[in-house]
Amino acid sequence: MPTSRTYLSSPTTLNANCFNFSGGPGALPESVLKETQRAIRQVPGQELSVLGMSHRSPWFRNVVDEAEANIRELLRVPADYRVLFLQGGGTLQFSMVPISFLRGTGRVAEYLHTGYWSGKAIDEARREGQVRVLWSGENGGFRHLPGEDELRFDSKAAYLHYVANETVEGLQFHRLQGVEGVPRICDMSSDFLSRPFDVSRFGMVYAHAQKNLGPAGVTVVLVHDDMLRRIPDNLPSMLDYRTHAEAGSIYNTAPVFAIYVTMLVTRWLREEIGGVEQMQVVNAAKAARLYATIDQSDGFYRGHAASKDRSLMNVAFRLPSEELEKKFLELAKIAGFHGLAGHRSLGGVRASIYNAVTLEAVESLCEFMEFFGNSHRAEIV
Amino acid sequence: MPTSRTYLSSPTTLNANCFNFSGGPGALPESVLKETQRAIRQVPGQELSVLGMSHRSPWFRNVVDEAEANIRELLRVPADYRVLFLQGGGTLQFSMVPISFLRGTGRVAEYLHTGYWSGKAIDEARREGQVRVLWSGENGGFRHLPGEDELRFDSKAAYLHYVANETVEGLQFHRLQGVEGVPRICDMSSDFLSRPFDVSRFGMVYAHAQKNLGPAGVTVVLVHDDMLRRIPDNLPSMLDYRTHAEAGSIYNTAPVFAIYVTMLVTRWLREEIGGVEQMQVVNAAKAARLYATIDQSDGFYRGHAASKDRSLMNVAFRLPSEELEKKFLELAKIAGFHGLAGHRSLGGVRASIYNAVTLEAVESLCEFMEFFGNSHRAEIV
Repeated sequence: MPTSRTYLSSPTTLNANCFNFSGGPGALPESVLKETQRAIRQVPGQELSVLGMSHRSPWFRNVVDEAEANIRELLRVPADYRVLFLQGGGTLQFSMVPISFLRGTGRVAEYLHTGYWSGKAIDEARREGQVRVLWSGENGGFRHLPGEDELRFDSKAAYLHYVANETVEGLQFHRLQGVEGVPRICDMSSDFLSRPFDVSRFGMVYAHAQKNLGPAGVTVVLVHDDMLRRIPDNLPSMLDYRTHAEAGSIYNTAPVFAIYVTMLVTRWLREEIGGVEQMQVVNAAKAARLYATIDQSDGFYRGHAASKDRSLMNVAFRLPSEELEKKFLELAKIAGFHGLAGHRSLGGVRASIYNAVTLEAVESLCEFMEFFGNSHRAEIV
Repeated sequence: MPTSRTYLSSPTTLNANCFNFSGGPGALPESVLKETQRAIRQVPGQELSVLGMSHRSPWFRNVVDEAEANIRELLRVPADYRVLFLQGGGTLQFSMVPISFLRGTGRVAEYLHTGYWSGKAIDEARREGQVRVLWSGENGGFRHLPGEDELRFDSKAAYLHYVANETVEGLQFHRLQGVEGVPRICDMSSDFLSRPFDVSRFGMVYAHAQKNLGPAGVTVVLVHDDMLRRIPDNLPSMLDYRTHAEAGSIYNTAPVFAIYVTMLVTRWLREEIGGVEQMQVVNAAKAARLYATIDQSDGFYRGHAASKDRSLMNVAFRLPSEELEKKFLELAKIAGFHGLAGHRSLGGVRASIYNAVTLEAVESLCEFMEFFGNSHRAEIV
């Protein structure tokens, strides 16, 4: 762990993977990396590499079943929801959702436009049917989320789609959106399993793995059985949630490795962390420490998001100048902090503090930020 | 390596991964597994695990570029073809092909029905437009492929689709199909990079990775620029080949790990094997040894495929009884030979001898087969 005395020393003695603040793919728990490394050679109890294990083997069926069981236990997923492991990332979900639940219904789907990723979802939905953007933060530069009184939900909408946590801008909903009777479909890609939530309030939830869940290459979908019954017939098999539900997520060759690592991460969350409630406590502490560093910097660091809508996962902030941001990122990298550059659409700095980023890593980053702020505050005119 | 004297001894001292005869996911080269294992901890020259590397990092851009360059060099891919790395496996290609090149054209697509997988492709194509099955081997139990005089190709077809190598039945085309003027679209999932072929004769070729290329989770597509111009507008972004072509295969978060391993495998093929021509020599020797064992067993082993259409990749065969097959598979597993059960649709035995299965592993399997045959031939009435 770097301290203020070692910022300029070589980081090779650190476990750099804990200091990965990337927006995703991001940090994975140390114990998961160790187990994965072993499985590349030989899966415990099997004789083969995890990369050579058949997707039709009893072993892999157990892997998928345990990953599902872990998620069910962690989030108390009701029995009338399916837990699916798909390919194509959040982006394919942006299309599969309106193809399944909007196209041909003659109804309107409501979307909240709260940042970069919800905008992408809206673009894809418009290809498939009628979309009403209920609220957009675009003119305000996506610095805050809609207030409780700003939204008039249509009780006849096909569904309401929103993004729980905007990864790029660092905005996170801290309360449920929508109205009863209209299925909520929520992209939780960047905060899934970071905190508890009531699955029963959603028609569908999806999250790609590469933030809190595992490596890139698999996407988790929780979908209510009622939603499956709305899906039109004759969709391409791979785009039909029912195909995957019926096959227990092994319809064609599943991404074995990505699901295996996801199983290990959910096991870690259950057994080592003790559940999403415990995880939330740690995540809140990490975020509190980081936002305090920003707020107590006398304006040297300026957070992007309005305080009330701050994300516990992605902390986007600016420095007094682009020159200083460049210097900050360069020095941070030398000091062993990785992945801190802001998203290409926004610039600046972004610290993503997903589940596997430790409180110690955040402490170190904050110390570094204080050190850097104190060293350069005098330069500001 | 097991010898006839050690069939019943423990296989723990072997490198079991070379003795993986699974239909896929299958064996990967020893050197690739070693490099991958190292990268799980730390990518050489980087400080992070390969699982935490950003898909927007210069490192990953180089990985994709090298994977593409290796494939281009190995197959002498002409400059007017794109090389894409997608998700969803061959099964998503079964839909993307007719969605892109058949739907709304008012034309007919021609398909050859030569086995289990081409049948799946036909099912998906029929959802999107008019399909003509030019030839089917279904009534004959998919034991042979169409002869040169059996096919009357329509020069006005939207395209011709066929499967180069039927993984389940062990049937492989040893000559080009189709007519000039009609784009050939070929599923080469189970023989891609196992032998040279003339890319310029195809409109599009696709292959998922988990046979000869890498782990499950990525699919390679070679597509001619003219084909891209035929794609209708307003497809879901993820289903539009142009999206991926324009983004250099990093449109959304790509399956970083699967592409990384694919890059290592293609590098191995270039640098350690010396190219697909060399690979073909080895593959031909492996297949010759295995088919000779079947043919010289006095009928104890019976190959599924007609001799002229035998696959160099998948060798499907039967024993005199299901009881003996069961015994064979059990003993083979104890002896350290993995993944030999036939596909669930066909039963029997299948030895898949993809690129990473060594000639030594095939030799050992043949010795085992001879040993087993000699031991049990007397039992047959």
